[in-house]
Amino acid sequence: MIMKKLINNPDNLVQELLEGFVLANQQKVALAPSNLVVRVCPKPADKVAVVTLGGSGHEPALSGYVGEGMLDISVPGEIFAAPGPPRVLDALRLAKRDAGILFIVLNHAGDVLSANVAAGLAAKEGILLRRVLTHDDISGGSRDTPEERRGLAGCLPVIKIAGAAAEKGYSLDECARVAEKIEAGMATLAVAISGATHPSTGEVIAEIADGRMVVGMGQHGEAGGGEQALATADKTAEIMLEPLLADIEAQAGDEVFVMLNGTGATTLMELYLILRRVKQILEARQITLTRSLVGEFLTVQEMAGFQMCVGRLDEELKSLWDAPSNAPVWVSK
Amino acid sequence: MIMKKLINNPDNLVQELLEGFVLANQQKVALAPSNLVVRVCPKPADKVAVVTLGGSGHEPALSGYVGEGMLDISVPGEIFAAPGPPRVLDALRLAKRDAGILFIVLNHAGDVLSANVAAGLAAKEGILLRRVLTHDDISGGSRDTPEERRGLAGCLPVIKIAGAAAEKGYSLDECARVAEKIEAGMATLAVAISGATHPSTGEVIAEIADGRMVVGMGQHGEAGGGEQALATADKTAEIMLEPLLADIEAQAGDEVFVMLNGTGATTLMELYLILRRVKQILEARQITLTRSLVGEFLTVQEMAGFQMCVGRLDEELKSLWDAPSNAPVWVSK
Repeated sequence: MIMKKLINNPDNLVQELLEGFVLANQQKVALAPSNLVVRVCPKPADKVAVVTLGGSGHEPALSGYVGEGMLDISVPGEIFAAPGPPRVLDALRLAKRDAGILFIVLNHAGDVLSANVAAGLAAKEGILLRRVLTHDDISGGSRDTPEERRGLAGCLPVIKIAGAAAEKGYSLDECARVAEKIEAGMATLAVAISGATHPSTGEVIAEIADGRMVVGMGQHGEAGGGEQALATADKTAEIMLEPLLADIEAQAGDEVFVMLNGTGATTLMELYLILRRVKQILEARQITLTRSLVGEFLTVQEMAGFQMCVGRLDEELKSLWDAPSNAPVWVSK
Repeated sequence: MIMKKLINNPDNLVQELLEGFVLANQQKVALAPSNLVVRVCPKPADKVAVVTLGGSGHEPALSGYVGEGMLDISVPGEIFAAPGPPRVLDALRLAKRDAGILFIVLNHAGDVLSANVAAGLAAKEGILLRRVLTHDDISGGSRDTPEERRGLAGCLPVIKIAGAAAEKGYSLDECARVAEKIEAGMATLAVAISGATHPSTGEVIAEIADGRMVVGMGQHGEAGGGEQALATADKTAEIMLEPLLADIEAQAGDEVFVMLNGTGATTLMELYLILRRVKQILEARQITLTRSLVGEFLTVQEMAGFQMCVGRLDEELKSLWDAPSNAPVWVSK
């Protein structure tokens, strides 16, 4: 596969993309030392800070969610690689406050390692924090082995809920409680239709034959085992939704949100078709689609495909979901 | 090229995507008879209505801009095809009001034909309207032959400015004046790096060899004549920006907006690199980048590439640019 991308020196890619990202959103975000993405107007220090980390190459994730009502600090790594512990520790030091830090970590080996090392060092410095791990990818294993489930785009509703709680002045324990509540009630599954190229190395991320699709693909091309013939939009919606509903044990009368996260080359047009069928299936099962999100929230370069994330919402979570946000990629009034 | 898309029956594609689009944004937009996309909460009848039309397949354009502070009605056509005059006339009848209708039309043969026929019939029914034509694509011809310039993504700033003016209660003439002011001061150029497939017919939209790019590509694959070797992000920014600045005769001391509109498979990562270089070039020429927009606003299916739109902003236009909008794809407070 020939790389069809507009880049400069691959060694300087992350630095340049961060400069452009901040420039595009300069009324909202800025780069702090150690290339931490921070808010231009920091949250008052008597409220819990929300911090996350993750590899670059997934734009607009995760730095696009820094802003009022969502994250305080994002620590972007290199392309598809976690930032090292020293920069993560810098972020925790910058966020340090008596109210504490809610530290949201996606379950990927590199992210978890960096987060744990940095959190351990931070604790020795008297920095108060609680870690919430997201592991929403049901292709990795059953609910009995959450450590085998990767963190996919489900981190974004977790960030939204935790960020809204922090902005409202919830305590650290309360922020962790609502973050864990939405995380425990959600499940995500990805499907890939075409591969992509790594923008630094030119390596192929997932090779998918014409007319095939792979259900369960991770967001760095990790194999999912679900290779099958490319299906219609309606059939794909069914293939994806049924195991997600089974995983969260959704019943008639439940209310759920659905997020359809395009991973790159898949059009909004296609995602609208998927949502239409999702709604039909939910109606037939007397489950209410109470909130939906359709767009590109956490991408895998130009990979065609999407992630479907389904989760339970109760009154408390709906109220936090609807709370104002002014992050570049999640503006709500 | 094998189609790698999730669709159902191609004959029902537009109907299904509109249903999904409205479902995804059901608190804001609805489908009226004749498949017109309208606001859930209509604008008061004493204010000018803003209406547009255009082919589907460019999602989120144009229906994603229906909402408070932007459009009142969008008339979506079939894939890459203008809606016929009867549905456009239905839209004008629905929008009819004493304050009048500002009717924004992109300069494409089919759109202009449908708009003119419908506007002529509407005039006979006593419907007050003014048409504003957008023709921002500088690859089509010089400023002396505007009829040869196609309407690209520059229609979106025009819709934003006109929509804000209408919401503030400007008269029809005043709405047309500010729409024509921003349109006259802007210029757009597109570059394509890979082709795409037509989702109904499976036909290839533009064939671009590996390692090549085409500057001046129209948004349906219309040839631009600017085929050349794929360049770096920095070099591409220079190739695109220089003729745009020349076209609008930008001088030191001017303030401009820049919109970078990804057409499909091009990542935000790449667009951030482009914006970074654009800012450097403008600074060197003492031109102020006063507003910027980076994202996928008007796509061409999965085509890799982007459109760069540059335009002058004065105090009046900046104020309208910053006015509140609640359209699904342009939320600002």
